[in-house]
Amino acid sequence: DICNRLMDEPTAQCLSGLKVLISAGPTREPLDPVRYITNRSSGKMGYALANAALKAGAKVTLVSGPVTLSAPDNAELISVETAAQMHAAVIAKAAEHDIYIGAAAVADYSPALMEKEKIKKQAEQTTLTLQKTRDILAEVAQLANRPFTVGFAAETHDLEQYAQDKLTRKNLDMIAANWVGRDLGGFDSEQNALLVFWKNGQKSLAMTDKNHLAEQLISLIVERMEYERRHKNTA
Amino acid sequence: DICNRLMDEPTAQCLSGLKVLISAGPTREPLDPVRYITNRSSGKMGYALANAALKAGAKVTLVSGPVTLSAPDNAELISVETAAQMHAAVIAKAAEHDIYIGAAAVADYSPALMEKEKIKKQAEQTTLTLQKTRDILAEVAQLANRPFTVGFAAETHDLEQYAQDKLTRKNLDMIAANWVGRDLGGFDSEQNALLVFWKNGQKSLAMTDKNHLAEQLISLIVERMEYERRHKNTA
Repeated sequence: DICNRLMDEPTAQCLSGLKVLISAGPTREPLDPVRYITNRSSGKMGYALANAALKAGAKVTLVSGPVTLSAPDNAELISVETAAQMHAAVIAKAAEHDIYIGAAAVADYSPALMEKEKIKKQAEQTTLTLQKTRDILAEVAQLANRPFTVGFAAETHDLEQYAQDKLTRKNLDMIAANWVGRDLGGFDSEQNALLVFWKNGQKSLAMTDKNHLAEQLISLIVERMEYERRHKNTA
Repeated sequence: DICNRLMDEPTAQCLSGLKVLISAGPTREPLDPVRYITNRSSGKMGYALANAALKAGAKVTLVSGPVTLSAPDNAELISVETAAQMHAAVIAKAAEHDIYIGAAAVADYSPALMEKEKIKKQAEQTTLTLQKTRDILAEVAQLANRPFTVGFAAETHDLEQYAQDKLTRKNLDMIAANWVGRDLGGFDSEQNALLVFWKNGQKSLAMTDKNHLAEQLISLIVERMEYERRHKNTA
């Protein structure tokens, strides 16, 4: 376990020479010039991962939706608003990075039509047509020169089942799953707990503050990458 | 013009003894435990009005949607999230106030159904059924013991026409109209300009910072209230 030192000695540079791409925060999908659909993601987990990766010696690119957090000074920050903008930014950058961590809460659907002028209130009921957005994680995992690809799953029910399914279906290297809509942890909270899955294993990271959790997840990513590298070389 | 002193002498207590109710910020209309519809309101105009009213000697109640601003220490703050919660809070408090300023950007529509669990991504397209929310301003203006009722109109086109129509249709005492989605002013900006209308008059308040603009609007409200009081007494 080459990176466990990270927790005790923050100077252990176990990501030295590697480039890490992290997407963080929510996206906003406009209905018109003033209204939009979004979600409760604060961006805290993604920003904590960026800080942990920098601490471990990586060069970090952070693609961020609208959040109230300050980006780490040493990261390259790319600010986006919509799922389409986040998709474009991540796909453009992914192949030149060694690790991609998709920690953003990207909208699954966005309004099929963005009205140019503010929609006026009329009928008692109305319907909004929503169009599926592009799947950033799955597309990164399909790139010829793909990075080690880590996804997140935030669920209100059947967490392990959804996470395992997402890992396989999207061909990810790792997925970090957490509960949302509960008292402790999840979106807009300082704390979180993660259930991390990879092809033939899993690890539970107990409830703690997101900075500490991020260091543990970075450590686990390095451990799995190292294992896969050794495995490839001896295969 | 009894309140013009306010701009030069902030100690002029032209709202002394009066109670002012202000609603501010956006609302969030949940689709499920993590997703919601909202708008670009920052709450700055409403919070600036609360500060100006306090400065003019009023007792202030501030009903606020989720914003990143700090509420003035001397205001009574009621924090809400949805249009329904804002409606309940304002209607419960309105009749005991002398002035109501509806500066919040309340959602006109909210999802007809709030899903208890996170909606899973499936079809390429989907539709969302939206239900009209209750009209807080119009309901306040219909109260038996109604306060002096001031609305806002934020529009991307036909500003004056919409504002005049809203003033009459909702039976308001005054409406403050501003452009949104333009380069300068409007939502999430430090500055704004207002076109203010009442039954037989109007006044244009030029582009300036929201704190200064709020003091001018408070001054205008006091002037119109005073005029109406005198008019009633001599009628």
